[in-house]
Amino acid sequence: MLKQTLEEGRKLADAALERLLPPAEQRPTSIHAAMRHSVFAGGKRIRPILCMEAGRDVSGNLPAGIEELGAGLEMLHTYSLIHDDLPALDNDDLRRGRPTCHKVFGEAIAILAGDALQTQAYEVFAGLRCPAEARVKIIEEIAKGTGTVNGMIGGQVVDLEAERIKPDAGTLEYIHRSKTAALITASLVSGGIYGGGSPEQIRSLRDFGQAIGLAFQIVDDILDLTQSSEQLGKTAGKDVASEKATYPALFGLDESRRKAAILLDSANRALDGVGASANVLKGLGRFLIERQN
Amino acid sequence: MLKQTLEEGRKLADAALERLLPPAEQRPTSIHAAMRHSVFAGGKRIRPILCMEAGRDVSGNLPAGIEELGAGLEMLHTYSLIHDDLPALDNDDLRRGRPTCHKVFGEAIAILAGDALQTQAYEVFAGLRCPAEARVKIIEEIAKGTGTVNGMIGGQVVDLEAERIKPDAGTLEYIHRSKTAALITASLVSGGIYGGGSPEQIRSLRDFGQAIGLAFQIVDDILDLTQSSEQLGKTAGKDVASEKATYPALFGLDESRRKAAILLDSANRALDGVGASANVLKGLGRFLIERQN
Repeated sequence: MLKQTLEEGRKLADAALERLLPPAEQRPTSIHAAMRHSVFAGGKRIRPILCMEAGRDVSGNLPAGIEELGAGLEMLHTYSLIHDDLPALDNDDLRRGRPTCHKVFGEAIAILAGDALQTQAYEVFAGLRCPAEARVKIIEEIAKGTGTVNGMIGGQVVDLEAERIKPDAGTLEYIHRSKTAALITASLVSGGIYGGGSPEQIRSLRDFGQAIGLAFQIVDDILDLTQSSEQLGKTAGKDVASEKATYPALFGLDESRRKAAILLDSANRALDGVGASANVLKGLGRFLIERQN
Repeated sequence: MLKQTLEEGRKLADAALERLLPPAEQRPTSIHAAMRHSVFAGGKRIRPILCMEAGRDVSGNLPAGIEELGAGLEMLHTYSLIHDDLPALDNDDLRRGRPTCHKVFGEAIAILAGDALQTQAYEVFAGLRCPAEARVKIIEEIAKGTGTVNGMIGGQVVDLEAERIKPDAGTLEYIHRSKTAALITASLVSGGIYGGGSPEQIRSLRDFGQAIGLAFQIVDDILDLTQSSEQLGKTAGKDVASEKATYPALFGLDESRRKAAILLDSANRALDGVGASANVLKGLGRFLIERQN
């Protein structure tokens, strides 16, 4: 059941991405090839799937066209990966088992491909098949979730600055909440808005997202430490090598696992506000915490 | 009269930017300082001013809150400058007479500051004080104007690829139309939409923008060749040094000046569709073509 949700969600998101990204043969071809290289690198499409399931849960059915919102979210996630991997940032050669964007296309095109995926995402959001009032709410929610104050870019900045200084638990939580949980939360909330969710449902989705998003990043830290590069499809052990701030580094592996489990519990409790239908989201949450890559 | 328009427009745009950008002391401070360093570096605020005057022309008055749209456009322009100046792209140390963002804050923060200005711009657009229907139209227009197909990023890509190969006139026109004219056009058209302009007025603003935007970039090429770094506030003679594709390189100075003058004429003719009030936009067009820096 969960496997089917993941598989169908991935296919829907992939088809929307294929349709919404400029074709590879569209001029200027280099940038479109670079955007597609990174978008179609075998991602699990977690954010689109969470978005679509949130929309389904608040409305009872998968709302028509919601996969386009999911595709835009995946464009934003991919833009952040391309820029994170650049030599000036994490300097990573491998991502999802393939050479990173700048290794294939050079740094200039990789910078512009990241920029362009962000731009393309907002073009997609502006043209979504829901009322204009919902579209601007969605755009505001997502821009905040990926911005500097408590969003993705802010988390990335503090993460960079925390290398080589040992951050305290509060700083580490800020990094993880902003860098990862904020876009996961925005994915769930925007899916709920698209599906016409009530304020109470939206609040539940937000609470679920914040808990599951933080747990997701804690698990990411654990996997970086315990899995091989082959298992992860990206360079393992990078966090230790770069003395990066992680939960296992600060709390140890066991305590990190315990924290992730507690967050999963509280995420599930938050879903009681969405309604009886939220079993798929609960399953997705458990899957994200128990995954091995 | 024109001087007053420019001065008042700049002040309005600056005040909106001050209000809409996170304060420098907001955590994470480094990125907010970097965003502000580049935004408040003495720009002329051409795009906000064109946007505001377009809104005034279609509606008879300066529409309330339109300076926020202008501020968002300036954020997008500044993001493109920060990324253009990076070592992997144009590798420029000087911009508007000040050290470029990466020279002061390092490459990582400069990349993220550019990203963040784009994100912040869309948050601003989503919250504009005009009907949601107009806001999504504005966002779509601006995303297209800054995108890869016929927009700013596309122009930048072809421009990069045209270094060291001599582009033909068609390619050069594509570069200039996409890299510069598209965002100038989007500024005028979005201002017209904000002001509630008719389809005919919007069409006239689009024609004006395409002509004046191309002329603007031709004049930029001419100034790079004929003015000193001090006069320009940025490194002069870079185009020749990097064998960049420019109008003077392809057509010579005199023919380039003649082309700019012809475009100014056709820009002014396009404005007849906006109405009798478009004298300020005509004056702005002339100012952009006759400027010395």
